Amino acid sequence: MGLVCEKGRLWVLDQTLLPNKVEWLRADSPNKMADYILELKVRGAPLIGVAAAAALARHAEEGADWEEFKASAKLLRRARPTAVNLMAAVDRMLAACRPAKRAARGDKDLAQKAAAEAERIFDEDVALCRRIAEHGARFIKDGESVLTHCNAGGLATAGIGTAVGVIRAAHESGKRIHVYVDETRPLLQGARLTAWELESLGIPYTIVCDNMAGSLMRRGKVRGVFVGADRIARNGDFANKIGTYPLAVLARHHDVPFYCAAPVTTVDLSITTGEGIPIEERSPEEVRRDWGPKRARVHNPAFDVTPADLLEAMILDVGVVKRSDLLKGALSSRLRRKPSR
Amino acid sequence: MGLVCEKGRLWVLDQTLLPNKVEWLRADSPNKMADYILELKVRGAPLIGVAAAAALARHAEEGADWEEFKASAKLLRRARPTAVNLMAAVDRMLAACRPAKRAARGDKDLAQKAAAEAERIFDEDVALCRRIAEHGARFIKDGESVLTHCNAGGLATAGIGTAVGVIRAAHESGKRIHVYVDETRPLLQGARLTAWELESLGIPYTIVCDNMAGSLMRRGKVRGVFVGADRIARNGDFANKIGTYPLAVLARHHDVPFYCAAPVTTVDLSITTGEGIPIEERSPEEVRRDWGPKRARVHNPAFDVTPADLLEAMILDVGVVKRSDLLKGALSSRLRRKPSR
Repeated sequence: MGLVCEKGRLWVLDQTLLPNKVEWLRADSPNKMADYILELKVRGAPLIGVAAAAALARHAEEGADWEEFKASAKLLRRARPTAVNLMAAVDRMLAACRPAKRAARGDKDLAQKAAAEAERIFDEDVALCRRIAEHGARFIKDGESVLTHCNAGGLATAGIGTAVGVIRAAHESGKRIHVYVDETRPLLQGARLTAWELESLGIPYTIVCDNMAGSLMRRGKVRGVFVGADRIARNGDFANKIGTYPLAVLARHHDVPFYCAAPVTTVDLSITTGEGIPIEERSPEEVRRDWGPKRARVHNPAFDVTPADLLEAMILDVGVVKRSDLLKGALSSRLRRKPSR
Repeated sequence: MGLVCEKGRLWVLDQTLLPNKVEWLRADSPNKMADYILELKVRGAPLIGVAAAAALARHAEEGADWEEFKASAKLLRRARPTAVNLMAAVDRMLAACRPAKRAARGDKDLAQKAAAEAERIFDEDVALCRRIAEHGARFIKDGESVLTHCNAGGLATAGIGTAVGVIRAAHESGKRIHVYVDETRPLLQGARLTAWELESLGIPYTIVCDNMAGSLMRRGKVRGVFVGADRIARNGDFANKIGTYPLAVLARHHDVPFYCAAPVTTVDLSITTGEGIPIEERSPEEVRRDWGPKRARVHNPAFDVTPADLLEAMILDVGVVKRSDLLKGALSSRLRRKPSR
């Protein structure tokens, strides 16, 4: 939803300007795409993977050789440190396009190979989203209100989204639902992006400040919390937008089921627990803006880590994994049985 | 700190413009003061009580008769519904100045009586803050970091503040402390006002978004949470700025002691539990600003209620009341033994 390839040109929707302005940017080099990712013009764990792959494909189509391709891959891979989808997609492009592999298959053309792989990554993400939604929709009942944080919607993926995809599927199945949208400080992806998506989907919603979710839960207004993920460790601990972890603690305190919805591309089996996930610290200016004292020290981690223990279940494209199974190590066995790539 | 009376003129500091602009406003009528309170130009539970009393005193000095005085009292009393200090201060002015009482004491002059009572309210608030700080400072140890929410500082009172007063006393006693300041959406009283106060006091601090407190606690960075209160029920449940309740849940989850610091003027013995405290719902515009979709529905409660059970202790001017004592009803017996007015 936030990325299109048209007539040999790659365009991305500038997500920092939504909902006030719908502006498409030309991402005509990996360099530019890396900047867009860093600046959050292109964002969402699955989408930045898709976008990096597409940028590499365009690079090859414009004549980059294997060395240039590799250098750009390295650059893109480093644009943001937490979401593993980015690294996974770049690594997949490198693996698919490496000269030895192409030679073995008699498939010498880097551009053709890269384009095919990027398209496959895009199409797969669309399909992954659809399957997540199918698995998750049953957790939202007719007449219920749920809460979501940040934007895990169509803007964050190539498809219908992860957590918002689940909500959308419940809505489209005819259930009357209502969504509380955490505004998600500091960059307001909830108030700006999720609200915009729900508005256009016709799903009733209410924006709240992040610090209001607790009293909503206390008053019984939230029957489930649905969030996405930027990286999932082998034991089910997961990193997601800052503010996810306190929601999980609040949900546990109020006996509200808490779900993480994500594609298997977000799972990083090389990391044992959430402790191993690198957390990006972003600029103080994002928090301080024009209201805090100029010299004020600011702590601005973009993500936090939620332990699997606080989850009701993880909703993956390969199916739903309950907390008890996550804690027994089900994630790695499930992924080994059904590899996504 | 946010209110001065000089040469027969009453001035208040416009707290919506801080820290970028220090502007004093003339509050030359109860009407104007009620507007300032509603618009949060004058804010903080203790301060709005002091400010309403001062406005009534000025009104009498400018010749208002008893009927006009009563009408203005009614207007001021309704300016904000949650903080009980406002109602308590107005009621106290009415009780002190009522004609029967003045006649009985041979004290006919409304203006003189009102001025004396308003001054007493101001001076008492200064003293209450000092005593709260003395009782509370021992809960912050040398080398510790604590967290505070909203602004319960000098700007919110006539004195050195409540929660921030405790922090200040710990700092002034020579302890090396550090304060995490919740920015406090939607109106950013933490990022704007508490940060400004700590900056001028030379107390090291770091601003965080409200949704970052959870991961700070998880990483052991917060050794205590100190907040103020807008109204305390008989059982120790208390209303405070929205976002206080989730902090209390997080503190409990992480075994971090959570303290509410307030003067007895904030206790409302007529209310049995927190359920009875009215919560002000404010304008959607405060949340939506220029970033949310124009038609977006918004929920904007200014306060939430924290049950006494989540407190480590309540730090009052009359002394510290531990959770176990609060739950045994100590608040009402403590206040009956040591009445503040």
